[in-house]
Amino acid sequence: MAEKRLSVKQYKNGLLQGDRAILGRAITLIESSLASDEKLAAEVISEILPSTGNSYRIGISGIPGAGKSTFIEALGKYLTGLQKKVAVLAIDPSSTLSGGSILGDKTRMNELSRSPLAFIRPSPSNTTPGGVAGKTYETILLCEAAGFEYILIETVGVGQSETAVFNLADFFLLLMIPGMGDELQAMKKGAMELTDAVLINKADGKNKEAALQAATEIRQALKLSASHTQPYVMTCSAKHNEGITEIAHCLEEFRKTAQACGDWEQKRSENSVQNLFSTVNYHLLKDFYETASIQRKIKTIENEVAKGKITPHTAAIKLLKNYKTKK
Amino acid sequence: MAEKRLSVKQYKNGLLQGDRAILGRAITLIESSLASDEKLAAEVISEILPSTGNSYRIGISGIPGAGKSTFIEALGKYLTGLQKKVAVLAIDPSSTLSGGSILGDKTRMNELSRSPLAFIRPSPSNTTPGGVAGKTYETILLCEAAGFEYILIETVGVGQSETAVFNLADFFLLLMIPGMGDELQAMKKGAMELTDAVLINKADGKNKEAALQAATEIRQALKLSASHTQPYVMTCSAKHNEGITEIAHCLEEFRKTAQACGDWEQKRSENSVQNLFSTVNYHLLKDFYETASIQRKIKTIENEVAKGKITPHTAAIKLLKNYKTKK
Repeated sequence: MAEKRLSVKQYKNGLLQGDRAILGRAITLIESSLASDEKLAAEVISEILPSTGNSYRIGISGIPGAGKSTFIEALGKYLTGLQKKVAVLAIDPSSTLSGGSILGDKTRMNELSRSPLAFIRPSPSNTTPGGVAGKTYETILLCEAAGFEYILIETVGVGQSETAVFNLADFFLLLMIPGMGDELQAMKKGAMELTDAVLINKADGKNKEAALQAATEIRQALKLSASHTQPYVMTCSAKHNEGITEIAHCLEEFRKTAQACGDWEQKRSENSVQNLFSTVNYHLLKDFYETASIQRKIKTIENEVAKGKITPHTAAIKLLKNYKTKK
Repeated sequence: MAEKRLSVKQYKNGLLQGDRAILGRAITLIESSLASDEKLAAEVISEILPSTGNSYRIGISGIPGAGKSTFIEALGKYLTGLQKKVAVLAIDPSSTLSGGSILGDKTRMNELSRSPLAFIRPSPSNTTPGGVAGKTYETILLCEAAGFEYILIETVGVGQSETAVFNLADFFLLLMIPGMGDELQAMKKGAMELTDAVLINKADGKNKEAALQAATEIRQALKLSASHTQPYVMTCSAKHNEGITEIAHCLEEFRKTAQACGDWEQKRSENSVQNLFSTVNYHLLKDFYETASIQRKIKTIENEVAKGKITPHTAAIKLLKNYKTKK
């Protein structure tokens, strides 16, 4: 019975009162792809829109094993310790491939999840990075309406989802670990370009030296680059709760500066427009690749193209014609 | 009268005889977006397909000012000096923005263009990088049918066109210049990931020291990266014809190795499949953004999204619905 659909007013009032159960149900509504749910979701969003925008949206990326969950728990606990309300969301494009790794195991944020000030929402299943961005944006709005002041958005360090999270965040933080040869790998992937802070985690015990060395190398490389804004480069040990206060201070410093000069609002506007286009493009491509007749033909045509029996252009035109007639 | 349309057989025979006038006209046919031309073009391609694939397709990228034209002329002259037939093509996504800069001025390749062994084709106008990739691939096939052994594909160092050229090339070469702070900028942009060779041009006079220094830095940075295949990093002076022989040797070494281990054929297959998908995706998006009713609405909706009056997701759904009903 608990999952009976609520009215727009019930969702709105529940959210504005910070009711966590209703927040959870509202997010489920947003994630639904039923037409009737989508209509209701749009109405709810429209109602709460004036009460949104007041959080600090923080994107956190890094390869599996970089310690994202441990870091988010440490930062989350620091913030809830200051009586701040913290929501944790996830974008996990790999869930269908890898069986789901991020935030799937809530126990990894055991302490934070027990705080009455924290709200942790695992990655939605059956989604792809292109599609999830638009819906995660609306989830952020719901959390803001419910009074959450910090929204930590976790993603694995994969191109498409990283870009999606970047386009949702006020501050984008890249978590790394020393000694895995990924110090410059991140630069290669273009992630540095997006990053407001590079954080070398696991800077403890015998790793400490390597972490400091990695930070120095990254600072050096960034100094040589032509980028006008230099990201913070720091080390921390999320496990031992070291360096967390310093990072929190950077976050506040960044917000203060960005809000004073107008960058904050501008970035949000740009992010929203990017989000609009990526959502449109995602649906255009999805509609094509999920069309039954295309799915039946595409493997064969792909093979013919790979073997040079037909040119990519001719093959593309063939598929597109088929798509148009089948619509 | 010269531009009367030829028959499939005339195109085919002309191409296989290496007739440069017919090659030029066949490329114009490929570039046409008239439905009747497209049909004829597909027939021509289908006829010549068995006579294609035997060239060395070399992608050349670099920011404006890196000396791409001078380098291509130097490399082209070296190759024609060995009695090799060389075609030069261009992908220029910026032509509509900047007024066209690459290969537009043929006189920049004055000497090469006078060689009976060289064929230089400027960038097609009125195109965008997404769309041009598929057609450039077919242009490459035409050149191959006409007996060209080296096909140099020039592009400006811009993300989308660079990727397009990468997906057309057997060997991808990034041209850089010292002292402009772009040594690491290239890595940031992810271009290094695609590159088979990094070439620091203008390594002459007072620039020589800086060029050697830049090469050392790049080698150092690449050594630290996790990439399994290390690109060549070299210096040259295209203007003074220095370092060109060395680069030509690298090209042959690369081809020999890649062909022996099967990487050559595999890369071509992968490139073709990438090309298929990028052509499909390009047309799907193009069709949407060029629909009159979308063009009328999109600016207004974009503004509303930027101002936070409507969420990106709701706006996207609205536009997509409009698109579907108008089709």
